[in-house]
Amino acid sequence: MGKVLVFGHKNPDTDSITSSLVIANLERKLGNNDVEACRLGNVNKETEYVLNYLKLEAPTLINDVEDGTEVILVDHNSPEETVSNINNAKILKIVDHHRLCGLVTDTPLYFRAEPVGCTGTIMYKLYKENGIEIDKKIATLMVSAIISDTLLFKSPTCTELDKKVGIELSRIAEIDLEKYGMEMLKAGTDLSSFSIDEILNLDAKETLLKSVKTVINQVNTASIPEVMKMKDDLERGMNKIINEKGLDLFVLLITDIVNSNSQVIALGKNADLVEKSYGVKLEDNTALLKGVVSRKKQVIPIMTENA
Amino acid sequence: MGKVLVFGHKNPDTDSITSSLVIANLERKLGNNDVEACRLGNVNKETEYVLNYLKLEAPTLINDVEDGTEVILVDHNSPEETVSNINNAKILKIVDHHRLCGLVTDTPLYFRAEPVGCTGTIMYKLYKENGIEIDKKIATLMVSAIISDTLLFKSPTCTELDKKVGIELSRIAEIDLEKYGMEMLKAGTDLSSFSIDEILNLDAKETLLKSVKTVINQVNTASIPEVMKMKDDLERGMNKIINEKGLDLFVLLITDIVNSNSQVIALGKNADLVEKSYGVKLEDNTALLKGVVSRKKQVIPIMTENA
Repeated sequence: MGKVLVFGHKNPDTDSITSSLVIANLERKLGNNDVEACRLGNVNKETEYVLNYLKLEAPTLINDVEDGTEVILVDHNSPEETVSNINNAKILKIVDHHRLCGLVTDTPLYFRAEPVGCTGTIMYKLYKENGIEIDKKIATLMVSAIISDTLLFKSPTCTELDKKVGIELSRIAEIDLEKYGMEMLKAGTDLSSFSIDEILNLDAKETLLKSVKTVINQVNTASIPEVMKMKDDLERGMNKIINEKGLDLFVLLITDIVNSNSQVIALGKNADLVEKSYGVKLEDNTALLKGVVSRKKQVIPIMTENA
Repeated sequence: MGKVLVFGHKNPDTDSITSSLVIANLERKLGNNDVEACRLGNVNKETEYVLNYLKLEAPTLINDVEDGTEVILVDHNSPEETVSNINNAKILKIVDHHRLCGLVTDTPLYFRAEPVGCTGTIMYKLYKENGIEIDKKIATLMVSAIISDTLLFKSPTCTELDKKVGIELSRIAEIDLEKYGMEMLKAGTDLSSFSIDEILNLDAKETLLKSVKTVINQVNTASIPEVMKMKDDLERGMNKIINEKGLDLFVLLITDIVNSNSQVIALGKNADLVEKSYGVKLEDNTALLKGVVSRKKQVIPIMTENA
């Protein structure tokens, strides 16, 4: 029997990367030594900040798994967001905080999902339930995921439990939540090394809003004007993707993590869906969505309702 | 907001009925008073034995739920085995021990599945994790489910944890496992009040074995010859169902819960699949499958492999 591979979703964010490391460590503590933390894509700048802070290597990059491989999924349960041959793998466990996405397995498995803001919060509970001590490094990984997914507790996806666990973990991690958190989030807003195409794919999710074929991409920033300098180039790239994928709508959310607003750029024949959903007028394809920071809670459901 | 409805699968068995009662009680202990245990079908004789022993009413019979109802599913996660309008309900929680069956939800939820023999075993863990005391009545409900699903620890679906939890619960329940368990299981083998059609639907599951459209029905008994007295009538009923549903195969497992064997009756154009799968020769459409008691572990995977 080969190694058990652990991984989060494609286009991995901080929760996907850290939760892979955190559950691989838990498995080892529970006696399963042949476990390897992996990832299905590049480490982003925010996650890089966390790994550098802890002097940790990134998990192993994989694109696929061999048929029959035993796997543990974290931070996702969607067939679209995992390895393409997931049906030929044996899923041992899933730990996640997303809606159910239609996965089918041949055999019973361990599935732990909770409606909280971050997989890191569930990981904390798993350590507690199994009586495994959370050391400084593991605590830092967990709290970084919570900071990332909840934008330092400011996102509407953040639950009371995420906040309580985040504060408790910050003590074990010996970090100043505000200082470490803002530095980490700001590290993630550095777009300097990315091409326009890369920016447009950083956190892009393809989704059907009823029958409207849509891509929603979200980019965090500490300064909306800084990103808007690239507006013409971004729009050219978005139109290219609209044509290639036959999209009805491309929504780019440029989210100000300091003031908790998003500037939206919307292109495609259904761009008016943004106007209808938020009572705004797109001027030159763009508008400010005040207080909107969560694609999951404040964008997808509202735009689906109006589609 | 209306009541939260809790229910197990259609054609409910002891685990589905008792786990509804057990989790409704847990929810109330945790402060959610507006919870009602329900069921999607008739209570079988085995479960009736348990409810009579405890002087408990059966959960409320429902056929469907109103759109928007909040629900908790136990002992199933299959869209086919739940209420037909599940997509219009809001699933708050699922506690289950089956494979993933492709359910899709709009929002994140609490999902707790473990690869153990019985939902009752997971329920025991949930009480412990939440620090809720398990009283004698609740312990009896939980251990009855474990006895039922594992055939008193003899089924290959039974894990070490099921056995450990079952023994611990029998102490709280103050029951003699062997005596209570055999009485309960034997109560479930009483077919006297059922018509042939009802017997053939008691625990029938429709499934695709690769492309072979199959119904596998399992009936527990303390005496195979007693059931085989009805063989001609059973075959007539099976052939009727084969024609009505356009089946390729109807497998009736008559499982001897005392000696852990199953007599199989197989009809339909793919009946030879039984011969190929178990190296037996069907004589007059029937054969003894020694040591076979679990449809999930010893029938579906083996017949799928040979289909």
